[in-house]
Amino acid sequence: MRLSTLRHACRNLPTPSVHQPRTGVRVFGLAKSSLRLGPSSNSQLLLRAASSVSGTTSAEKAPKLGKQTDGPGYENTIRENVQRTKEEMVALQRGHPALKPTLAIIQADEDDRLLELNKKMAGKIGLNVTQICLPRECTEDEIIEEVLKLNEDPRVHGVYLHLPPASLTSRVLNTLRPEKDVDGVSDLNVGRLVRGDMNQGFIPPLANAVMELLARHGEQRKIVLVVGGEGPLGVALQCLMQRRGMVVLHSRRSSEVLQKQVCTHRCMQYPETCESFEDLQRLKSNLSNVVQSSSRWAQGQQYRPWTLRSLKLQPLSPVPSDIEISRAQTPKPVDQLAQEIGLLQEETEAYGRTKAKVRLSLLDRLREQPDGKYVLVAGITPTPLGEGKSTVVIGLVQALSAHLKLNSFACLRQPSQGPTFGVKGQRGQISTHISMLEISMLINESFNLHLTGDIHAITAANNLVAAAIDARMLHEATQKDKALYSRLVPSVNGVRRFSPIQISRLRRLGISEIDPSALTPQEVSSFVRLDLDPAKVTWQRVVDTNDRFLRKITVGQASTEKGHVRETQFDIAVASEIMAILALADGLGDMKTRLGRMVVGSSRSGQPVTAEDLGVSGALAVLMKDAIKPTLMQTLEGSPVFVHAGPFANIAHGNSSVLADKLALKLVGEDGFVVTEAGFGADIGMEKFFNIKCRASGLRPNVVVLVATVRALKMHGGGPNVSAGSPLPREYIDESHHSLLQSLQLFPWFPLWLPSPWLLHRTDTQAEIDLVCQMAKESGASDAVPCHHWARGGRGSVELAQAVKQAGSQPSHFQFLYSQETPIVEKIRMIAQKVYGADDIELSPEAQAKIDYYNQQGYGKLPICMAKTHLSLSHLPEKKGAPTGFTLPIRDIRASIGAGFIYPLVGTMSTMPGLPTRPCFYDIDLDPVTEEITGLF
Amino acid sequence: MRLSTLRHACRNLPTPSVHQPRTGVRVFGLAKSSLRLGPSSNSQLLLRAASSVSGTTSAEKAPKLGKQTDGPGYENTIRENVQRTKEEMVALQRGHPALKPTLAIIQADEDDRLLELNKKMAGKIGLNVTQICLPRECTEDEIIEEVLKLNEDPRVHGVYLHLPPASLTSRVLNTLRPEKDVDGVSDLNVGRLVRGDMNQGFIPPLANAVMELLARHGEQRKIVLVVGGEGPLGVALQCLMQRRGMVVLHSRRSSEVLQKQVCTHRCMQYPETCESFEDLQRLKSNLSNVVQSSSRWAQGQQYRPWTLRSLKLQPLSPVPSDIEISRAQTPKPVDQLAQEIGLLQEETEAYGRTKAKVRLSLLDRLREQPDGKYVLVAGITPTPLGEGKSTVVIGLVQALSAHLKLNSFACLRQPSQGPTFGVKGQRGQISTHISMLEISMLINESFNLHLTGDIHAITAANNLVAAAIDARMLHEATQKDKALYSRLVPSVNGVRRFSPIQISRLRRLGISEIDPSALTPQEVSSFVRLDLDPAKVTWQRVVDTNDRFLRKITVGQASTEKGHVRETQFDIAVASEIMAILALADGLGDMKTRLGRMVVGSSRSGQPVTAEDLGVSGALAVLMKDAIKPTLMQTLEGSPVFVHAGPFANIAHGNSSVLADKLALKLVGEDGFVVTEAGFGADIGMEKFFNIKCRASGLRPNVVVLVATVRALKMHGGGPNVSAGSPLPREYIDESHHSLLQSLQLFPWFPLWLPSPWLLHRTDTQAEIDLVCQMAKESGASDAVPCHHWARGGRGSVELAQAVKQAGSQPSHFQFLYSQETPIVEKIRMIAQKVYGADDIELSPEAQAKIDYYNQQGYGKLPICMAKTHLSLSHLPEKKGAPTGFTLPIRDIRASIGAGFIYPLVGTMSTMPGLPTRPCFYDIDLDPVTEEITGLF
Repeated sequence: MRLSTLRHACRNLPTPSVHQPRTGVRVFGLAKSSLRLGPSSNSQLLLRAASSVSGTTSAEKAPKLGKQTDGPGYENTIRENVQRTKEEMVALQRGHPALKPTLAIIQADEDDRLLELNKKMAGKIGLNVTQICLPRECTEDEIIEEVLKLNEDPRVHGVYLHLPPASLTSRVLNTLRPEKDVDGVSDLNVGRLVRGDMNQGFIPPLANAVMELLARHGEQRKIVLVVGGEGPLGVALQCLMQRRGMVVLHSRRSSEVLQKQVCTHRCMQYPETCESFEDLQRLKSNLSNVVQSSSRWAQGQQYRPWTLRSLKLQPLSPVPSDIEISRAQTPKPVDQLAQEIGLLQEETEAYGRTKAKVRLSLLDRLREQPDGKYVLVAGITPTPLGEGKSTVVIGLVQALSAHLKLNSFACLRQPSQGPTFGVKGQRGQISTHISMLEISMLINESFNLHLTGDIHAITAANNLVAAAIDARMLHEATQKDKALYSRLVPSVNGVRRFSPIQISRLRRLGISEIDPSALTPQEVSSFVRLDLDPAKVTWQRVVDTNDRFLRKITVGQASTEKGHVRETQFDIAVASEIMAILALADGLGDMKTRLGRMVVGSSRSGQPVTAEDLGVSGALAVLMKDAIKPTLMQTLEGSPVFVHAGPFANIAHGNSSVLADKLALKLVGEDGFVVTEAGFGADIGMEKFFNIKCRASGLRPNVVVLVATVRALKMHGGGPNVSAGSPLPREYIDESHHSLLQSLQLFPWFPLWLPSPWLLHRTDTQAEIDLVCQMAKESGASDAVPCHHWARGGRGSVELAQAVKQAGSQPSHFQFLYSQETPIVEKIRMIAQKVYGADDIELSPEAQAKIDYYNQQGYGKLPICMAKTHLSLSHLPEKKGAPTGFTLPIRDIRASIGAGFIYPLVGTMSTMPGLPTRPCFYDIDLDPVTEEITGLF
Repeated sequence: MRLSTLRHACRNLPTPSVHQPRTGVRVFGLAKSSLRLGPSSNSQLLLRAASSVSGTTSAEKAPKLGKQTDGPGYENTIRENVQRTKEEMVALQRGHPALKPTLAIIQADEDDRLLELNKKMAGKIGLNVTQICLPRECTEDEIIEEVLKLNEDPRVHGVYLHLPPASLTSRVLNTLRPEKDVDGVSDLNVGRLVRGDMNQGFIPPLANAVMELLARHGEQRKIVLVVGGEGPLGVALQCLMQRRGMVVLHSRRSSEVLQKQVCTHRCMQYPETCESFEDLQRLKSNLSNVVQSSSRWAQGQQYRPWTLRSLKLQPLSPVPSDIEISRAQTPKPVDQLAQEIGLLQEETEAYGRTKAKVRLSLLDRLREQPDGKYVLVAGITPTPLGEGKSTVVIGLVQALSAHLKLNSFACLRQPSQGPTFGVKGQRGQISTHISMLEISMLINESFNLHLTGDIHAITAANNLVAAAIDARMLHEATQKDKALYSRLVPSVNGVRRFSPIQISRLRRLGISEIDPSALTPQEVSSFVRLDLDPAKVTWQRVVDTNDRFLRKITVGQASTEKGHVRETQFDIAVASEIMAILALADGLGDMKTRLGRMVVGSSRSGQPVTAEDLGVSGALAVLMKDAIKPTLMQTLEGSPVFVHAGPFANIAHGNSSVLADKLALKLVGEDGFVVTEAGFGADIGMEKFFNIKCRASGLRPNVVVLVATVRALKMHGGGPNVSAGSPLPREYIDESHHSLLQSLQLFPWFPLWLPSPWLLHRTDTQAEIDLVCQMAKESGASDAVPCHHWARGGRGSVELAQAVKQAGSQPSHFQFLYSQETPIVEKIRMIAQKVYGADDIELSPEAQAKIDYYNQQGYGKLPICMAKTHLSLSHLPEKKGAPTGFTLPIRDIRASIGAGFIYPLVGTMSTMPGLPTRPCFYDIDLDPVTEEITGLF
């Protein structure tokens, strides 16, 4: 409707008769394109603000709108708006100096005046503006492509679609992520406004401007006649006005009806002219919404208690089998879990419905966030059946999150697939891995054995190195220097050039020349010949299968390999040094560096040969680039879990990844808890957690939980045949407990709080539990509580959770057992004496020679990773309790230079399990119709 | 507001003075709980329908509402509603007999009258109702858990939350998937209604009921006074009324204001009493929305042209490197792609942002949908550099989908990871695999080498079989029958029982007894002893690495294996029979059966030993259960691609999976196109596509595209050094073309349409292209067109796409080359003579012995999968063109019983590539900051 029509309508109003309150009239006419409310937008809108018709309104109270709403009034409003938004910006940036609130504008064709105005105001306020200019004839698809990019861009807090009305299709508007839709035009944001949920979504700027104008006329109850405005904007206005207690009257736009309406409402004043379009446009700005969006974003970075949706366990008696419990639960979709714990959409990569990888960019986003409390679950020296540490971790996190409502996270190792098909309970003997079976019991995961493929990635990377070693030895053996050189540094389109990886090797060789043609023959020779000694290759191939026949093999027997046979072996995949690197790496760059410096063997002249010398380090990083992201899963009660990395606990350090812990500590925030576990007993896993993992990560534990089952204590006490139902002979308790006391006393360098849970078997008696708890407390534990999580889920661990919470509030005074500067022999001796209780160590000549070699190579400052049996504090599995008076023999010493530790061998370590006569797989089956798996428990 | 207040307000209205149109008044009072519009819902609502105030309305025209709205009127309306909904149901079910429209009701506490009413009506209409009863004190989380389950349940078309108002939180309402929110209460659906997008979302039933009542009073323009109703329902009503051309007046609920309002509008009639609550409730039903939802669901199953968002390629000159093209494109999120091609949310499992596995349940959902056209891309006998078939597939699909706007899908093989790190272009020599590099060029994928882990799953499954074989041989060699038996069939809790897998073995041995204690010693012996002959084990281990040193190895040399050493080998992973099975399986059940019947070797007495005999078949199915789902990706222009399975083209059939093709054919629908390719040349890949893959799948190709590059034709012609820039010597064209003619003439049994594209290199001249196209057409191709997709993307293949579309509209008369019943020797001879042009075949004594053995074992009816060089139609790579006068020697014959074919060996097939002196990996690197990969092109 043209304004002249309105004026005409108003002029022809009949003389007011009954009910004539004083009132002011304000009429706004808005251009269609300025509303930007989509295809159904009905954009001509007239608004009439009248003071309340109630008898209490007097002439004095009614503001003289006609006077207030002229030019200078608007100017003031605009100035005030800008000022207020600017102040909000300043306050926001004070709290978040790194935050750069940014509005992105997608526009087709050239700038116009309004856009210029907006940009000028943005400048005044201090907002960043990014402009994306599309050609005038751009398609819907092209606009959507740009919108999608901005959706994903974490630097953009609001998007302004400055496009012709025809381009603002429903599809375009609804593609824009609602949290960046600062014009409040998407279906979802319109719905939110109508339903009244203004914690999310945005008020359309024009509606805001109208509300501000109305506010200028006082806060009294008003009757507002909205003329026209049938579209979303009218609806938005109506909802906002009603919420402010105004009475909204709607009218149609035909001049006839309007005349009737205006008449009906008996207006006293109406302006002759009302060219307020310009002014309203100037008031209408989405900039304050951008600031609001940025502020919400900033709030999302703050610590806040999660609203975690817990899944209720239905505790049944008798306790059902694990597989039944697991099936009875429906996991939350992983994107929902991610949202609950404060992850942004662009920070996760789903793998199926219940798993997601989490991007490391999170560390950067939350770098200002203080870490949560760091809790380690360790065990006493275990029995071959294991201690159930993983179940304690899960139970504890469920109790903390689902029952005490504290943000908390479990960080677990990724289990090896091999033992799943081997022997139940076998893992204790052959590796420290929790099995895939166990994971499926603990975690709400419909058994995808491959998880997110990290171990497969490790296998691929490991075996690429192995293939490169043998191929290189063959090529060096069968080619002269010149031929090797011309192949290694070929002429491509007439140009010979070293690759960056080759330049690194040149540097290590002390050759500064980078022109391939300028090397001396001697330099060429030292460059092309790694001269690997086949007898000194330490790199092994791996598979993630229990394949005992690969423990010792001969390779290269085909005629194509020209007699270059060699004895070697396969290890189980998790024994790869690459797994240890994954667990210790601090980021992509650190991982790449570590992969490059892995030593695969030594040359005939005794020089270490690295993965980078083989030229393969870049490819390894590429193969591992997704594996470095921890995998998010959930417990049966819906608490978050990271599953990431699972190195051996003997030849490596047996702890899940540094990165998962770091991500989790940021996610839980300062009042939260991250619970992780160390493989094997405290003498191995915990010692390595402190001296290797914490040293690498810079993290320090706040609480340590030491796990022991009553039954394990009995068995560990030495009794050969304690039957489960009969009373526990007193001497066994004493003895077992004594061994525990001993282990506790073995860590004088470890002044942490130790709430010690005691796992219950169904047959344990209350007297047993009481006795054990009492003695644990007497021995210095800050607390000792029984756990019933196996039967009752998180609820069964609430007592433990409370003890951990209490312990976490105390200061911890962590220190390392040894300094890195200590000589290798001394480091080994300190561990042997202070942790194991040995009198001394005894080095074999091989071990001594290796130490000399490592010192000479500059590896002397690496921490020590003992490869020792986990079944005794000593090197002899049969020695139970806390043995003394023994000398720890160091048979040999090896090094994982990439991972960054030296591992002395105390006895023989099996790195490849085997299959028994009747492996588990006989019972494993898949129903092809229901896709249900049987036999995996 | 109580109705008495309203009545009071109305009674005290002043006498109407000016403007007194006749009008009817209808007042509805609604109980709060019945509105179910969330926490902000403002649910008391009064509605006044007045005839238009315009002067044209006469007393005659104004319906007498007071009279019409009594009981019987409502009854009629309700009856009509039920009748109409029922008719819609009948129509819907006629079109979709399998569809069972279902409403799920989540309720807390007991039934009430309204619910009963709803259920009764549902029964009348023929709707299924599922009731989920929660305890009265259920938590928000528990409700959400149920809602999430219903969201995912494809059998449920609408959800009715019959819960106390306090439970209907924003979180609950917005968790419900909008397409099942038949009450239209979620933010998104409210927004859709306001913005006017009613193709999605639902009108709230109460609003619908009100609109129906109003409709009963005639369709004239009306002024409606809505009293109260500030909440979403009021907004919904207002929008609906306005869209029907009514004038909506809103009023507050205070009796004072109402009085003024009603007065203002000068109503003439107002009822004394208006207890219409009951009636409106009965009218208000979401059942028709459930039918609507079901109908939308059914429409989703119908064929429809996709609205595929194409990604625009910016064709640049000179053509940039592939990696640059790939980086310049931003892929669509895979969930968006999935939606565009009609996949349901629950049918995909995302793997990262750009890949998703697609569930096989899709086949069931779309089983009524006619298949699209099935297009095979094959090549002429290739050069060692390959023909670029994959690029033709991609270009063609891009042209069909992005340019001709036809639904179309590419189905490609998953490439092996090994060659990525080997030699560029090497794959032609050693395998038929397109490389990972190539895939990254063609498909919009940020280079995740592991893709969705299918090849890793195959590796794991393959090597589990291998480990089981050697372990079993060891256990049998070192244990007596009784010991083996007691281990294989152990007593668990005093009970001995055969596992189902063992019972299968007993059946094969002809033992019907299933009581372990009742077997005779002889039966026990034959049960426990597979008696595998180490020299006759045909199963090999695999790795997905080019590791030449594993071509021949000796295993079992560790002392723990007690001297049971054995010579064996590793193959590259894609050579595993499990890969061939994945490619041919028709579903989970079929795959499991095939895995179980894989023959791994034979016993000393000559009996075949299967994976099921080893007890491992169930575990294999479990390991492969996700690999069976095809991986959805996209081309650079945003067209859909399935990447699934990639068996060798020599020892296996070299075609991507049957399941991917089947899924794609359903998804594109009857007017769509699915384009797949066959490995190697037409003599190998295409022949196997027809006689093995099509035989297994039951699918028949509609069009075959034969690919040849001009340059390849030149080289294939025999010229040793044809330089790219110089004119093509006539004799070479003749000769090459002759060979093509020959190959075409070799397929008289193949009466398909052959639009033959000719790939262009930048240096090809127009004269060359014209000549080649002309001669191809003369030789019987339905068309021959040049392709420029390499430089121009899909646009460069439009001519080909049109030729394919034209050819697809012709009937095809496909028939197999041989019947399954034909004896093995005859099958081989037919292929050799009719496809290769050989005079005859010559069987070695080994081959003849094998044929006898296979016939005896009942494998005689399996199709033939020739293992022959791909570089010549003959067995001699140097014989170019279409050689004649040769005898094809069959050196040996093997069988893949699980995959289901017999493969005669013509020459030596390498199944393990090696690394060259300077493998590609020297150039491969990862920037740890940008995560950009270099060197992979």
